[in-house]
Amino acid sequence: MKASQFFVSTLKEAPADAEIVSHKLMMRAGLIKRLGAGIYNYMPMGLRVIRKVEGIIREEMNRAGAIELLMPIVQPAELWQETGRFDKMGPELLRVKDRHERDFIIQPTSEEVVTDIARQELRSYKQLPKNFYHIQTKFRDERRPRFGIMRGREFTMKDAYSFDRDVEAAGRSYDAMFKAYIAIFDRMGLQYRAVAADTGAIGGDRSHEFQVIADTGEDAIIYCPNSEYAANIELAEALPLLAERAAPTLPLEKTSTPGTATCADVARFLGLPLQRTVKTLVLATDEFDEAGKVAKSTVWLLMVRGDHELNEVKASKVEGLKGGFRFATLAEIDTHFGCKPGYLGPIGMKQPVKVVVDRTVARMSDFVCGANDEDYHYTGVNWGRDLPEPDVVADLRNVVEGDPSPDGKGLLAIQRGIEVGHVFYLGTKYSKAMNATYLDEKGKPQFMEMGCYGIGVTRLLGAAIEQNHDERGIIWPDAMAPFRIVICPIGMDRSEAVRAEAERLYQSLQALGVDVLLDDRGERPGAMFADWELVGVPHRIVISDRGLKEGKLEYQGRRDAQATPVAQAEVDAFLKDKLLA
Amino acid sequence: MKASQFFVSTLKEAPADAEIVSHKLMMRAGLIKRLGAGIYNYMPMGLRVIRKVEGIIREEMNRAGAIELLMPIVQPAELWQETGRFDKMGPELLRVKDRHERDFIIQPTSEEVVTDIARQELRSYKQLPKNFYHIQTKFRDERRPRFGIMRGREFTMKDAYSFDRDVEAAGRSYDAMFKAYIAIFDRMGLQYRAVAADTGAIGGDRSHEFQVIADTGEDAIIYCPNSEYAANIELAEALPLLAERAAPTLPLEKTSTPGTATCADVARFLGLPLQRTVKTLVLATDEFDEAGKVAKSTVWLLMVRGDHELNEVKASKVEGLKGGFRFATLAEIDTHFGCKPGYLGPIGMKQPVKVVVDRTVARMSDFVCGANDEDYHYTGVNWGRDLPEPDVVADLRNVVEGDPSPDGKGLLAIQRGIEVGHVFYLGTKYSKAMNATYLDEKGKPQFMEMGCYGIGVTRLLGAAIEQNHDERGIIWPDAMAPFRIVICPIGMDRSEAVRAEAERLYQSLQALGVDVLLDDRGERPGAMFADWELVGVPHRIVISDRGLKEGKLEYQGRRDAQATPVAQAEVDAFLKDKLLA
Repeated sequence: MKASQFFVSTLKEAPADAEIVSHKLMMRAGLIKRLGAGIYNYMPMGLRVIRKVEGIIREEMNRAGAIELLMPIVQPAELWQETGRFDKMGPELLRVKDRHERDFIIQPTSEEVVTDIARQELRSYKQLPKNFYHIQTKFRDERRPRFGIMRGREFTMKDAYSFDRDVEAAGRSYDAMFKAYIAIFDRMGLQYRAVAADTGAIGGDRSHEFQVIADTGEDAIIYCPNSEYAANIELAEALPLLAERAAPTLPLEKTSTPGTATCADVARFLGLPLQRTVKTLVLATDEFDEAGKVAKSTVWLLMVRGDHELNEVKASKVEGLKGGFRFATLAEIDTHFGCKPGYLGPIGMKQPVKVVVDRTVARMSDFVCGANDEDYHYTGVNWGRDLPEPDVVADLRNVVEGDPSPDGKGLLAIQRGIEVGHVFYLGTKYSKAMNATYLDEKGKPQFMEMGCYGIGVTRLLGAAIEQNHDERGIIWPDAMAPFRIVICPIGMDRSEAVRAEAERLYQSLQALGVDVLLDDRGERPGAMFADWELVGVPHRIVISDRGLKEGKLEYQGRRDAQATPVAQAEVDAFLKDKLLA
Repeated sequence: MKASQFFVSTLKEAPADAEIVSHKLMMRAGLIKRLGAGIYNYMPMGLRVIRKVEGIIREEMNRAGAIELLMPIVQPAELWQETGRFDKMGPELLRVKDRHERDFIIQPTSEEVVTDIARQELRSYKQLPKNFYHIQTKFRDERRPRFGIMRGREFTMKDAYSFDRDVEAAGRSYDAMFKAYIAIFDRMGLQYRAVAADTGAIGGDRSHEFQVIADTGEDAIIYCPNSEYAANIELAEALPLLAERAAPTLPLEKTSTPGTATCADVARFLGLPLQRTVKTLVLATDEFDEAGKVAKSTVWLLMVRGDHELNEVKASKVEGLKGGFRFATLAEIDTHFGCKPGYLGPIGMKQPVKVVVDRTVARMSDFVCGANDEDYHYTGVNWGRDLPEPDVVADLRNVVEGDPSPDGKGLLAIQRGIEVGHVFYLGTKYSKAMNATYLDEKGKPQFMEMGCYGIGVTRLLGAAIEQNHDERGIIWPDAMAPFRIVICPIGMDRSEAVRAEAERLYQSLQALGVDVLLDDRGERPGAMFADWELVGVPHRIVISDRGLKEGKLEYQGRRDAQATPVAQAEVDAFLKDKLLA
C-alpha cells in the first residue's frame, strides 16, 4: 500500500473525553473515530488491525475444528423469551420493535440463536461434537460506555458454541478451545494469562478468562510465580493465614474506643496491628411470596479480618446466601444489634443471627471486634470462651499479595489484566431451556452439553495498546500491526535515487508477501517518523540521498533506541531475516 | 476442507414459504436458515459463498482506489435529522431508543455517517478525491420481506461514497466505480447489464443499475441488441412511433359504445386496431398551506395510446407534476368531466384541464377517445380540428418490445433482471444538508460533490442462482462457489486404494491453492452426488475401485451431461488445466 492511496489521519492531541492511554492513542493514530457514546467508526487504519486479529482468530478456530457461520444482529425476541433472558436481562439488552410492533433484540451474544440452530440441525449423536462460531457485531447498551472500544456499546466479538453428547465430551471441546485460545494470543504476541474464573450457578471448574497483562487493567489476576496457578479475584482461594488457633492469653474486655468506626481507627487507637481486629458485615436475604412480595427477611453476620475485604461472589456460595443477598438496612441492624454500624459484633446481639466467618477469622484468638455499643469494642475475644464457635466457616475474602498459593507452591502475586477472552462450560443451561436434544445410540433424546467461548475482537486492540506503547505512541506486535513495515523515503520528489530505491524495496517486500507501506506523501522526515511511531508500525526503513551515497539505508525497530545502518546491497536479506524469521 | 469436519445439511424438500427457485435452493442446499421474517442465519456453506463475493468486491474496490473502513450499524438519530431522513423515511427505517431514551437507527445505508466523517476529515482540496466504502450489515424493515435473502430485512451490502471537488472530478470517480463494477461482475462470471437509470431530483445522467439477467427478475431491462444501449423501464426513452401526423381522413363522430370502459373493449367493439384508440388518465396535484392542509388541487388529463402504459416516473418529470401527483378522485373526475371513468376524453370537458399527451398520441390522427358521456366514444378525432393542440407533449409511456432504440440503432428488446448494484451521482444533496465543505486553492469553502455506489452482497447469491440452476440444484460460477471442486471417493472406508488416491489428490489440489472439498462422510454415491449437485459445486472427481483398476478417475463439470474418464496419471494436469486456466 502507498500512503498517498490510503487514509492517514493523525492528531497531535487526543480528545478530552479519552481517559486511558489506549483510547487516546487510538484516536490520535486515526484508528477509530467517535460517532456517538460508545459507538465508533473503525477508520481504515483501525480496520486493518481488526482484520489481522480476525484472521488469526479464524485460522485457529478452524484449525481447532470449529465451523464458521453468521448469525443475525437483529434477533426475534421469542427465542430470548424461551430462555427468559428477554425479561431477565437489564437495559444493557437493546430491545426494538419492528413496524408490526413485534419485539426484537440487537444481539449481545447468540446462545439462543445457536441453540435454536442446533436443536433443528443436530439430531443424532453421530453429528456431535459440533462447534459453531461467528465473528459478528454485538451491541450492549452500557450505562456508562467509556475507554473507547474497550468498553463500547457496539463492538465486534468472536463467539463460539460447542455441542456435545456428554460432560466428558464437552470437556474435550472445552480443552480444544482453551488450546486454540493459547495459540491465538501467542500468535498475537501478547503477554497474557489464562485465569481460572468462577462458574456461578453452572458449577464445575471449567471457566477461564484470558487476561492481557496491563498495569491499567480493570481486573486483578492472582497468580503464583512458581507455578501455573492463576485465578481471578472471585475464584482465587484464600487459605487460612494461621496454621491453628492459638490458646487465649487475654481476658475479654469491653474497651472504650470513641470515634473509631473502622478497623484501622480501632487498631490505631488501641496501638494494635490491624491483623488483630475483625471486620463485621451485616447482610440480609429475602424470601418472596407468590405475588413477588417479600414474605420474610433473614439477617446474617459475616466476619473477615480487619485488613481483609469481603468477596461477594465467595459469600454468595455460602448455603443460605446462594439465592442472592443484600446489605442489611439500618432498621434491620438496629433490630438485631441495637447499635449503629461501626461497632457491631457477634457478642451480645439483641436478636442473635447466623455468624459466618472467614477461615482466617475462625483461627484467630485474642481479637478485637465491635461490642454492639456505640464507641465500644471488645478486646481479647476468643471463640468458644467468649462466644460460641462460628456457625459457618468459609472462604469469604479477597486474597492479597503474599497469601499462600492454594497449590502450596509459594506465595501469591497480583497483576492487573484486561479480559479479552473467556471459555465457559455451560452444561445444559440453554439446551434444557430450549429443549435442544439429540438422539443417542438407543434412540433416546438427551440434552446437549454446551460450552461458549468468546473473544473481544475490538477490545483486543485496546488491550494490546495498554500493554504495548510508549510516549511516542503505539507499539504493535507484528501480527496485529496495520502495516508491518513502513518505507520512509526522504525527499522522494527531489531525488530520483531515493525514489528508485524506495519503489524497488517496496516491490521486493510486496513480492515476499510482507504487508508494507510506502510513505509517498512527501511529508518532512520529522512529521513522517512521528506519524508512524504514533501509529505503531513495528519496522521502519529510511532511505535518504545522503545514505544512498554511502550505500546505506537505516533500519529501526519500533522499540529500538536508535537506527541501524544497513548496506544497500544487504537490505533485502536483512529485512527478510527480520520479517520472515 | 474435509466434509466430515464441515457442516453439510441438505434437504429433500424446500419449506413451503419459499416462493422462488433461488430461495428454495438456498434452503435445500443449507446455505441459509430462516430465523425470522426476512432474517436468516448464513450457514457455513452459505457464508463461504458470501466471503468469496466479498473478497472479489474488496479486491476490485481497492484496485479502483477506494478505501475500506467500517461504519457502525447502530447510528445516532441526530445525523439523520440533519438530512431530514429520520423523519422522511417510512417505517422501513428501523428506529430504536437506547436506555437513556435517545433515538438511534439501524443503518439501511450510511450517507449521513460518511458525510459526517468527510466534513471532519477532508478539509482541503489536496485530500480529494476520496472514496470510502464498507461491507456491512444493513437492515430495512420491509413490509413484506420475501424471496429469502433477495428481499430480506437484514442483509449485507457494500456501499461506497466518493467525495470530489467538482462535478467533473465526481464524474471521474463515477466512471472509476462503473469500471470496478464491470470488473466485479465479470469476475463473478455472471451475465448482467449496466442499465441507465433515472436520477430523480438529482438530475443529470449519472445513474446506472447493474442487473443480473434472469427470467424471474423483478425488473424490466430495456436494451438494443445491436448497440450498447440499456436502460431501466423508468428511463428508457419512448420515441414517437409515427414519423409525422397524417392528415385527417374521417369526420368526428360520437359513437355509441355501450359497456366498453377499456380501450381493448372499444377497439373490439368498433372492429379497429387497439393502436387507433387513446387511453385517458386523470391525475391531480395538491398545493398545501402552511398548516400542511390542502389549499388547492389541480386536475390533469394525460393520454397514452390504447396499447401503451403510463410510466409514472416519466409523468413526474412534466412541469407541474414534479412535486408529486395522485390519481384523481371520483368526485374530482365528475366535477371536471361530468362522467365516470372509462369514457373520459379531452373533448367537451365540463371544466377544462391541462392536457398532457404522449409523443405518439400527439402524432395520431383519426383516433378514438372517450366522449365524456357514459357508453359513448368519439371516433375520427383529430388534433387542431376537433380539439386544440395538446398543452404538453412528453414521453409518458413505458417502452415496449420492438420500439425503436433511442440511439437509432435498431429495435428495443426487453429482458428481466435482478438489481444487484447501483452507481449514483449524488451531487451536493448530502454535503449541502450537512455542510460538508473543503477549502479550495483560494481557501474558499466549497461543497463536496458526492457519489454513492452499492452492491447487494447477499442479494447477489440469489441473483446468481436465479440465473444459474437446473432441476438438480445450483450451478455456481467458479468464482462464487463455496468449493470449486469436490472429490467423491466411492467406498473410501473399504478400499485403501480409493482412500489413498483421494487423499493424494486432495493434498495435490490444496497445494495448488484450489478450494477443494473431500467428501469423506461415507455417504452412498447417489446421495453424495445429489448433495453436491444441489449445493452446486462446479467440478467433481469420482474415485472408485473399479475405475482405479482401469487406471481411471471420472471428471464431471456441473453443467456437463456426462462424466469424462481421465487417466489416473494425467488427472493432476487435467485438473490444473480446468481449474487454473
